Amino acid sequence: MTAIEFSAFIDRLATASGEAILPFFRTALTVDDKSAGGIFDPVTAADRAGELAMRALIRDTFPSHGVVGEEFGADKPDAEYVWVLDPIDGTKSFIAGMPAWGTLIALTRHGHPVFGMMHQPFFAERFSGDGKTARYRGPRSERTLMVRPCESLDRAVLFTTSPRLMNQADRAVYARIEEKVRLSRYGGDCYAYCMLAAGHIDLVIETELKPHDVAALIPIITGAGGIVTTWEGEAPEQGGRLVAAGDRRVHAAALEMLKAG
Amino acid sequence: MTAIEFSAFIDRLATASGEAILPFFRTALTVDDKSAGGIFDPVTAADRAGELAMRALIRDTFPSHGVVGEEFGADKPDAEYVWVLDPIDGTKSFIAGMPAWGTLIALTRHGHPVFGMMHQPFFAERFSGDGKTARYRGPRSERTLMVRPCESLDRAVLFTTSPRLMNQADRAVYARIEEKVRLSRYGGDCYAYCMLAAGHIDLVIETELKPHDVAALIPIITGAGGIVTTWEGEAPEQGGRLVAAGDRRVHAAALEMLKAG
Repeated sequence: MTAIEFSAFIDRLATASGEAILPFFRTALTVDDKSAGGIFDPVTAADRAGELAMRALIRDTFPSHGVVGEEFGADKPDAEYVWVLDPIDGTKSFIAGMPAWGTLIALTRHGHPVFGMMHQPFFAERFSGDGKTARYRGPRSERTLMVRPCESLDRAVLFTTSPRLMNQADRAVYARIEEKVRLSRYGGDCYAYCMLAAGHIDLVIETELKPHDVAALIPIITGAGGIVTTWEGEAPEQGGRLVAAGDRRVHAAALEMLKAG
Repeated sequence: MTAIEFSAFIDRLATASGEAILPFFRTALTVDDKSAGGIFDPVTAADRAGELAMRALIRDTFPSHGVVGEEFGADKPDAEYVWVLDPIDGTKSFIAGMPAWGTLIALTRHGHPVFGMMHQPFFAERFSGDGKTARYRGPRSERTLMVRPCESLDRAVLFTTSPRLMNQADRAVYARIEEKVRLSRYGGDCYAYCMLAAGHIDLVIETELKPHDVAALIPIITGAGGIVTTWEGEAPEQGGRLVAAGDRRVHAAALEMLKAG
């Protein structure tokens, strides 16, 4: 398989999952609650339909590849190539009818993400990257994604999905960084990382991320010239507490505060 | 003028403002800071271009009408018909490249909003209402907007743009309601009210709203069967602290807690 063939196949995955998901967006849908008594964690019929559509296509086309999905677990997770799927990242936005959600599709090789896509099927937006370049295709335009320069925290626009998703200690550290930046906003999920890759924002800081929340975004962020690590400065593939920045100076400044705790 | 002619004219305003605004979305743009030293309050060239486009069209078509705009103040505010314009509601989402912003266009008669539209030009979504009915037109469909039933706070999905926009006392009251609801989310600006009208969420609670933030949304919310008042239960036209709900039972329950403080 060449990179171009993989890229074309990922577009097919995005199209198939989008068709499976869209009948459930802004319509009546069944909401489950995975976490009994815990934080509200909706799993929709759309989530399952999207993942099943992608799994079927992968099984038919690349039977030797592994698949790790948010909804249906791991199949051959030790294969050379493994697809990491999150059919709806931003389920809370999704059930509220809000636009900021997307389908995350990653291809990993020997455990490292080599290609990633964020697809918003309702608005027909595709953000993709391979760690070296990154690209946007939308209803009105198509272009290369590139982070913007930002020299210091006090010039930075910061996003996090919600500080309420953080534990108390993490939230306190986050709040101190929030005080330093030019603008802080909540909401966004996968969209925030794509806006960072597109050069519209400078910093995303989150916690409690799963591997399927980040695998697709890493090659987009790095492909656009950005950097993403854990709060300890380590590799981000396993998720957890992550900090992504468009400019290394802002990443370094945020990391220093995150490490100090 | 008939209602149908006004409605067609509002579509022209939306189209004209969208064309003026879009060249600035997700591109380099100039950001001013209106509030010296205060909360970051971006005003973009897009904001001004959108309002000027609408003002020109109103002046040419209805020279006797008044106009009150976010950017260029009031012109004949005591006329029988006054247009209330907010070219970009959700400027912070706008400058971050995020989708949840819109152009708010209201027509008031004797001070009361009789027609309102929220237009998202990038994604081609128009939400409109006249207090009796409300309508959605988007890239994939067109339909009547209708709130959904919700019997109690513990079943409700709540939105606010950000609790950081509230003063400390208001934030404390908000936090108590947040503890009661099924799901609470930040972000959204005008989109949150439109999702309420569309029956996807149940409750929006905000503070510090200006008349131009709400004039267009009131006829959409009430046209879809919802209710919006101040935290004191009074008419919402002047903005301030507002609570909007799809179901009167949820509105009453929230109002009781908001009044108790």
